[in-house]
Amino acid sequence: LFSKLPQTEISIFTLMTDLANSYNAINLAQGFPGFDCYPYLQDLVTEYMQKGFNQYAPSHGVGLLRQRIEEKSRLLYGVQFDVDTEITVTSGATEALYVAITSVVKVDDEVIILEPAYDCYVPAIQLNGGLPVFVQLDSENFSVPWEKVKDAFSEKTKAIIINNPHNPGGYVWKKSDFETLSQLTGDREIYIISDEVYDHILFDERKHLSPCMVDSLKSKTFVCGSLGKTFHVTGWKIGYCLAPVKLTKEFRKIHQYVTFSTATPFQFALADFMIDPTRYFHLGEFYESKRNLFLNGLKETLFEFTPTEGSFFQTVSYKHLSKEADYELAKKMTVRARVAAIPISYFYHDKKDEKVLRFCFAKEDDVLEEAIYRLIEFC
Amino acid sequence: LFSKLPQTEISIFTLMTDLANSYNAINLAQGFPGFDCYPYLQDLVTEYMQKGFNQYAPSHGVGLLRQRIEEKSRLLYGVQFDVDTEITVTSGATEALYVAITSVVKVDDEVIILEPAYDCYVPAIQLNGGLPVFVQLDSENFSVPWEKVKDAFSEKTKAIIINNPHNPGGYVWKKSDFETLSQLTGDREIYIISDEVYDHILFDERKHLSPCMVDSLKSKTFVCGSLGKTFHVTGWKIGYCLAPVKLTKEFRKIHQYVTFSTATPFQFALADFMIDPTRYFHLGEFYESKRNLFLNGLKETLFEFTPTEGSFFQTVSYKHLSKEADYELAKKMTVRARVAAIPISYFYHDKKDEKVLRFCFAKEDDVLEEAIYRLIEFC
Ligand SMILES: CSCCC(=O)C(=O)O
Ligand SMILES: CSCCC(=O)C(=O)O
Repeated sequence: LFSKLPQTEISIFTLMTDLANSYNAINLAQGFPGFDCYPYLQDLVTEYMQKGFNQYAPSHGVGLLRQRIEEKSRLLYGVQFDVDTEITVTSGATEALYVAITSVVKVDDEVIILEPAYDCYVPAIQLNGGLPVFVQLDSENFSVPWEKVKDAFSEKTKAIIINNPHNPGGYVWKKSDFETLSQLTGDREIYIISDEVYDHILFDERKHLSPCMVDSLKSKTFVCGSLGKTFHVTGWKIGYCLAPVKLTKEFRKIHQYVTFSTATPFQFALADFMIDPTRYFHLGEFYESKRNLFLNGLKETLFEFTPTEGSFFQTVSYKHLSKEADYELAKKMTVRARVAAIPISYFYHDKKDEKVLRFCFAKEDDVLEEAIYRLIEFC
Repeated sequence: LFSKLPQTEISIFTLMTDLANSYNAINLAQGFPGFDCYPYLQDLVTEYMQKGFNQYAPSHGVGLLRQRIEEKSRLLYGVQFDVDTEITVTSGATEALYVAITSVVKVDDEVIILEPAYDCYVPAIQLNGGLPVFVQLDSENFSVPWEKVKDAFSEKTKAIIINNPHNPGGYVWKKSDFETLSQLTGDREIYIISDEVYDHILFDERKHLSPCMVDSLKSKTFVCGSLGKTFHVTGWKIGYCLAPVKLTKEFRKIHQYVTFSTATPFQFALADFMIDPTRYFHLGEFYESKRNLFLNGLKETLFEFTPTEGSFFQTVSYKHLSKEADYELAKKMTVRARVAAIPISYFYHDKKDEKVLRFCFAKEDDVLEEAIYRLIEFC
């Protein structure tokens, strides 16, 4: 069987999680919360199962949940999306990203990717016969080098994938980033696929911005979001896509044949739970104290870092300490210090090794403290 | 935005379910159980949620669940699949079918479809740039016209999609069907995508067969199955794919980027629940009594039919009664008799109208009795 994804191996998240488990290490590699969701949210799921909500949900999502996502979007962006025609519930943000990419990318289309980049963008483009065009983010703070992006645009550019707050870099997009993006795309049919799964996790009073807030961009934008990341239930696999009618029409056609629909009792439970917006608007504050705890500890290690602006990730540089390949160091750290992290080379198409590791600090405070203790020893 | 699926409209299942709901009709259209799963299965989900199983499952599925699927497959087929390398859990059989098709179909590849066919095969082929080649099943009993299938094979044939027990026709494949399929494909690299979501629902002591039981076919076969259909939880969206190592390798690469993983607490709960195989091996008997009840009633109507051999569907012909288009009749029946069914023209690429409707009898007995009563009035 001829492979469509010859370069794809087992995902680095799977690899490091398996390694962490074998060595009983603290898993700061794969990005998921080390604590549980609110018990009330679980009770709601039980209640809906018992009421018999166990059969197919509507393909584009339970109406009540789409309504709550609309409210959340209105509060977050100050922008309105139509509940019936512009919001689709998906089986995780991964599905939302895959379907959005599949909606617009055709054979030989170019798609701009800002690296380091989350690992699902490139394969989704390749599966559609598209060509990723890579631009490297600033290696210090992961800001966007717009001159380079401009050079990457061509006649064949069909889309650009942006990720804000950025995983793994934690960069939060500024107003000027969106202004420049708007100038660059102009009137051309270039779609923006906006990965915003950390939309509620911004620090130091930063405000989340999105291309859907920019008039000239909204009509071309797919916003992909995650309720799993926001409500500490990454294993429930509930995401969504916001996009104007025309784009949503194509998105839903494809979604209908990729998964058809998403788990019913979770959708109803989340709809009830999201009635109170403080349940997601506190998230930045919640994670900010974890970030601060973790970064205070990191200062005691020999790693260098710029504090993350958003997401639940912190990258650290060790190039002043060792010439070892990042994957080798990550393995060694898992085995010896029993703390697992992600080697950032896996976020570059050419496995570019900048000697940077990524830590996830979405863990209980005592776990973070223990991890710091072990990292100090290790350094 | 140029559409990759110009012919796709809103699915007939969504359309008829919405219509049924607006007219408060009995919904014998979309295929889902009208009764609930075992309360014990729900309790297990609650238990696993409370134990904190709410984060990402492994991408290819929870190990324990793959083990249970292996046991089920061994009992059903007498064939072994390797738990670690040949079984993948998916977000419903729809995802399994989509990913299997995406694993093998490339631009300009031909894929043979036996019509009437479930609506997700063709779009999945088209999204991969493949070309569906249609062969019509026998219009009486939906058996496979092998001479026509032979004629449909070409140099470019890359795969054939089979569905057994057949939806909507209820035909159950015979040993000779697989022998002929094996002769036809011979040594060629032609993949079999086998949709077996009704694998436990066979009537009159028929035995389920699969291409994975035929030595010459197993190495080319993707078996796509559904735990939602088997355990009365279609809304949980848990399916799976069985395929030899080489095929599973490609399948998992794609699955990793389409949904990454599937709902964790459902996977653990189903793994526990499936410990007792009588919980799925009784299913044929369970649905046979519903089929018999429904068919006894149908005899009192003016519809003509051949008893379904498997699945929870029964098709009926009305061409001796009316020349009305099947979609029009289905609408009229929903509005006037308040019983919804699926017009079979939607299962043909050219909307061929054979004047046939499909009823789903996966409903409580009293609901089936009431539906029959209304259908007798309507005829
Ligand atoms: C889907 S597993 C990866 C989770 C994640 O978002 C990350 O670790 O970056
Ligand atoms: C995914 S909705 C359709 C359910 C079904 O299998 C059918 O009605 O044929």
